[in-house]
Amino acid sequence: MNFASDNCSGAHPSVIAGLAAANDGHVASYGADRLTRAAADRVREVLDAPEAEVMFVATGTAANVISLSAVTQPWQRIFCHEEAHIETSECGAPEMFTGGAKLTLIPGEGAVMDADALEHAASFWAGEGLGGGQPGAVSITNSTEWGRVWTPDMVAEISAVARQHKLALHMDGARFANAVVGTGADPADLTHRAGVDLLSFGGTKNGALGVEAVVAFDGEHAERLAFMRKRSGHLLSKHRYLSAQFHALLEDGLWLRLAANANDMATRLARGLEDIEGARLAQPVESSQVFAVLPVDAEDRARAAGATFNRWASIGEDTDEEVTLRFVCSWSTTPEEVDRLIEALRG
Amino acid sequence: MNFASDNCSGAHPSVIAGLAAANDGHVASYGADRLTRAAADRVREVLDAPEAEVMFVATGTAANVISLSAVTQPWQRIFCHEEAHIETSECGAPEMFTGGAKLTLIPGEGAVMDADALEHAASFWAGEGLGGGQPGAVSITNSTEWGRVWTPDMVAEISAVARQHKLALHMDGARFANAVVGTGADPADLTHRAGVDLLSFGGTKNGALGVEAVVAFDGEHAERLAFMRKRSGHLLSKHRYLSAQFHALLEDGLWLRLAANANDMATRLARGLEDIEGARLAQPVESSQVFAVLPVDAEDRARAAGATFNRWASIGEDTDEEVTLRFVCSWSTTPEEVDRLIEALRG
Amino acid sequence: MNFASDNCSGAHPSVIAGLAAANDGHVASYGADRLTRAAADRVREVLDAPEAEVMFVATGTAANVISLSAVTQPWQRIFCHEEAHIETSECGAPEMFTGGAKLTLIPGEGAVMDADALEHAASFWAGEGLGGGQPGAVSITNSTEWGRVWTPDMVAEISAVARQHKLALHMDGARFANAVVGTGADPADLTHRAGVDLLSFGGTKNGALGVEAVVAFDGEHAERLAFMRKRSGHLLSKHRYLSAQFHALLEDGLWLRLAANANDMATRLARGLEDIEGARLAQPVESSQVFAVLPVDAEDRARAAGATFNRWASIGEDTDEEVTLRFVCSWSTTPEEVDRLIEALRG
Amino acid sequence: MNFASDNCSGAHPSVIAGLAAANDGHVASYGADRLTRAAADRVREVLDAPEAEVMFVATGTAANVISLSAVTQPWQRIFCHEEAHIETSECGAPEMFTGGAKLTLIPGEGAVMDADALEHAASFWAGEGLGGGQPGAVSITNSTEWGRVWTPDMVAEISAVARQHKLALHMDGARFANAVVGTGADPADLTHRAGVDLLSFGGTKNGALGVEAVVAFDGEHAERLAFMRKRSGHLLSKHRYLSAQFHALLEDGLWLRLAANANDMATRLARGLEDIEGARLAQPVESSQVFAVLPVDAEDRARAAGATFNRWASIGEDTDEEVTLRFVCSWSTTPEEVDRLIEALRG
Repeated sequence: MNFASDNCSGAHPSVIAGLAAANDGHVASYGADRLTRAAADRVREVLDAPEAEVMFVATGTAANVISLSAVTQPWQRIFCHEEAHIETSECGAPEMFTGGAKLTLIPGEGAVMDADALEHAASFWAGEGLGGGQPGAVSITNSTEWGRVWTPDMVAEISAVARQHKLALHMDGARFANAVVGTGADPADLTHRAGVDLLSFGGTKNGALGVEAVVAFDGEHAERLAFMRKRSGHLLSKHRYLSAQFHALLEDGLWLRLAANANDMATRLARGLEDIEGARLAQPVESSQVFAVLPVDAEDRARAAGATFNRWASIGEDTDEEVTLRFVCSWSTTPEEVDRLIEALRG
Repeated sequence: MNFASDNCSGAHPSVIAGLAAANDGHVASYGADRLTRAAADRVREVLDAPEAEVMFVATGTAANVISLSAVTQPWQRIFCHEEAHIETSECGAPEMFTGGAKLTLIPGEGAVMDADALEHAASFWAGEGLGGGQPGAVSITNSTEWGRVWTPDMVAEISAVARQHKLALHMDGARFANAVVGTGADPADLTHRAGVDLLSFGGTKNGALGVEAVVAFDGEHAERLAFMRKRSGHLLSKHRYLSAQFHALLEDGLWLRLAANANDMATRLARGLEDIEGARLAQPVESSQVFAVLPVDAEDRARAAGATFNRWASIGEDTDEEVTLRFVCSWSTTPEEVDRLIEALRG
Repeated sequence: MNFASDNCSGAHPSVIAGLAAANDGHVASYGADRLTRAAADRVREVLDAPEAEVMFVATGTAANVISLSAVTQPWQRIFCHEEAHIETSECGAPEMFTGGAKLTLIPGEGAVMDADALEHAASFWAGEGLGGGQPGAVSITNSTEWGRVWTPDMVAEISAVARQHKLALHMDGARFANAVVGTGADPADLTHRAGVDLLSFGGTKNGALGVEAVVAFDGEHAERLAFMRKRSGHLLSKHRYLSAQFHALLEDGLWLRLAANANDMATRLARGLEDIEGARLAQPVESSQVFAVLPVDAEDRARAAGATFNRWASIGEDTDEEVTLRFVCSWSTTPEEVDRLIEALRG
Repeated sequence: MNFASDNCSGAHPSVIAGLAAANDGHVASYGADRLTRAAADRVREVLDAPEAEVMFVATGTAANVISLSAVTQPWQRIFCHEEAHIETSECGAPEMFTGGAKLTLIPGEGAVMDADALEHAASFWAGEGLGGGQPGAVSITNSTEWGRVWTPDMVAEISAVARQHKLALHMDGARFANAVVGTGADPADLTHRAGVDLLSFGGTKNGALGVEAVVAFDGEHAERLAFMRKRSGHLLSKHRYLSAQFHALLEDGLWLRLAANANDMATRLARGLEDIEGARLAQPVESSQVFAVLPVDAEDRARAAGATFNRWASIGEDTDEEVTLRFVCSWSTTPEEVDRLIEALRG
């Protein structure tokens, strides 16, 4: 009953098998091997983006901040949601990689950036001259830090604002597969066709050991990305072992089946909560995460039964007799685990 | 009738005279000259801080960010007001000099940081572990970006929060003299005795050509400050010409007389506005700046009469038939100028 | 016949097996799992350093520059050899992670830093005051970029200079195992007992997929290291898969057996070269790399036979009819491969 | 008898007079004033560069590193002489402002970069791929740190190498006036007509209080330069007082007359040294600095007579009974001072 995070789950057996199969003799290092090309081709294929630059790295933070560093000047502002992972959980990595660009925080329900608020902020800072810190990029997360999803239309609305202000648009897709499944959208419609310039395409939380793809839909960023990956120590020498993971995930739609399991389990959990006295969802469940307000009693019971999960609160939202809890489902979560959790919560 | 900024005003004749007097033959460079020692001694004296480290630089941004760089790690957060100059007007200099520390914005009326909000934010981020970006420092501005003043008690309240969280406390005193005059407080009571660790002591806006003092009340920061000043190109070689300015300003209380004039003129202007139909103060006038909401008509009349000043709005505060205007008085503003402005506004 | 680099070799089967075994259910993420503790304990054990801080990362560059960032101020100099990997092959990562510290290059035969030259440079820059860039750290590579090894005595000689100037001493041990085998020294004698403060302990080139350990013998650096790893995107969430690799390598001395094979193969190759007309060693062979000057004809023959390897030249050492070639042996190089290479070279 | 540095000299009376004249009422701040435009126009005029971007800052380090930051990526190398001021005396400012670019040191007699050595290094690093750190810019100093001058032909030779490798060419002209006088060349021939892209045009050492001009002959760099000046705290608010200094220096050729005095005094000193037993020039005297090898006795006598000057040695050039001394002449050095120094040295 581990609902603490999808990065507590293991790797899918196909990924391990892919690694083992890749362990075959000598090959060129630093990504100049055949498997890396094949894996990158699969990424381009599922995104219907034959011209995209694809680069693999081992962490989501690396994918996010290398992406942002390619499109932001040190004196610019990156607009992101107040609760964006790049603001709350990356220890200043965006600032480090961009050479000191500022994150400017935009509100929005469910960690979905509000387009009007973005428009307002971008216009304001664009007018502030040299000292203000000029608008440079926008970063959104799909699915969001509160488990919500951006649909193609929602992305298009943000990208219209971004384009008007000449801002690059980055999507943190640490849980991109869950967003694809959650929206039912085509991956291309959810990204470049809706105006996304750079995608952090997550593999780790979706059944890999540790791999994310930086996808630059516009090839012009390739050089900066390559230098930044190298310079930040994120170009793995025995690169085939990164590539093998993505290669396995994208084979025959495995990545979508794994994400579908996570999303389904979240839905199952959400339904189960309906019958629990005093429980309510803090957010609609649209992907793999369930945020629920529950009586402290229920929390205690679940912990006593051995479930792991985290309390979750934005800044300013203190809890009292009630607590907001986050339950993350993963590719490996089972219906039995979900049912046991519900039982424990119900008491 | 220039009310655009106190940095549009010139230098006081005594400062020019001090410069000319300093222009006497060869002296040691890089601050190893007698006049620099004498000027630093005067700073220590007016602040009653005999052990303080004092360093002169040519700009307020330099003073602020060199100060902050000495007490902040790259992975930390600096708490400042939403409208702090270091956030809105320094083009990311704090991020550049600290190696990427984050500014975390705290609300508060009149650009005075709210102590409870600081306590809340510091506690929150302290609990967020490695990824969160740990609290590192607090920066407040006195007098504030909206012309308000921090009294010793207000500073002490913030410093209590800072101390509890082991945060260094920096005061941006670009208009420190105006705050001293506005509060009537002893400069020592307003700074180190109330818990301030580092002060940017402004000279430029108070009648100098361009000089600010970095004052570190705790000598332990001296080494970092010295390296950072050098490394950022802010150690002037013919240093006597910076020092001469401060030396002149601090002679016989000139700095306070100059600030008193600016504050008096602001008060005179505020009183004059009372009689203008449709005018109201946007903020109480406590130092040298007047923020007033006025009919667009009045604005037009004043501009037609040749007055210069700026519209002023926080993010989100759009104006319509009414505008928020900022009028900055300086050491050289005359009662006649103020009266002519009032007349023009009144129509 | 791949002698291009030991990072072209695969992973040892025990490492893959270790990974698969680690793939067992949910565990705590970000290194808070049992396997990570066990792997770190093994590192401490082989180094006889029970108090050491041990952190795993996925690349050698990350290990090097996170280490250096913990002991260097942005305004300092890091002394390294002219041909040190951190200078020639990391795309400025040391500068990025330290916030701009300078690499100051020291000569020395075989990429072994000359102790007198270090003493001279450290004294010189220590005397250059604020502007000069003060000495901060020393980094040496063992085994070196030219395949030479540092013995405990040699390390002690450098560390004596370092200590006198209060410089932290870092050892880039991307091929540390090869140095241990090549010197026959105890790993502790080669590092902390000889004055090394920080070790990048390489796993990747010695049979792992991609893992290096940052080892800080002095626990005081733990906090900076942890923040820098997180901030640079190098803290892997599913951390067990890094740890499992080191855990497998250090089991029952596997790491030393693997390195011994590489070193033995290099010796075998060196001997074979003795009989080749016009061939000579460019450097004594002391670990796993062979640098040899060979007629261009021999090179052509070897390439025609399918061997891969690189030309190698320092700055300034151009080649003509003769070429300097680098042959890197690895844990998986076989005697047959070596013999075939020799045969091909001989013609 | 101060020959320690030309930054120990004062300001020319015309500069002080210019400042006083500029102190006239309210003007626009941050460089939007008429005097700033007029001063920039004079810079463009003396350089015959009507399209050049001109920006004033208060220090030479600021001018150098803001210039370099506009044309260098963080992952690139800047080639400069081993004894370039940016390497030896700016505390890592180039690394700070460029976000971590590397300085790669090129040898050359008299601190004049050797063009062949540059060609060799640029070719080498261009071939080193991602990891190597790609060539980005070249910086030369005129007159050099050893008082030598670059003629237009010499500059053209370096710029040919730079152009071939697509490197921006920067000239540190802290003593540019002395180089112009020393070569007798037209300022335009010595800079943009010979391929210089960016010039740090020094005022401070040539009779100002503290002002240097960043001159970008190619207007495309204007935006980066402006942001970097602001972001680094080097945009002075009461900007007229910087501009006034350059305005005064460039009036009626004053800058060249001042430099001519410094150069003449150096020549006079060099001639005087001819008659001193055991004295010899360490470098030909081509501008305002004299480097001479002298018996320690002579040094002692000069110091006893009250002369100030510095010992000067490159790394590795230790002295024994003989010392290498640097004597810097300035705009204010008098024949009498020179003669007294010679007398004291002679004994």
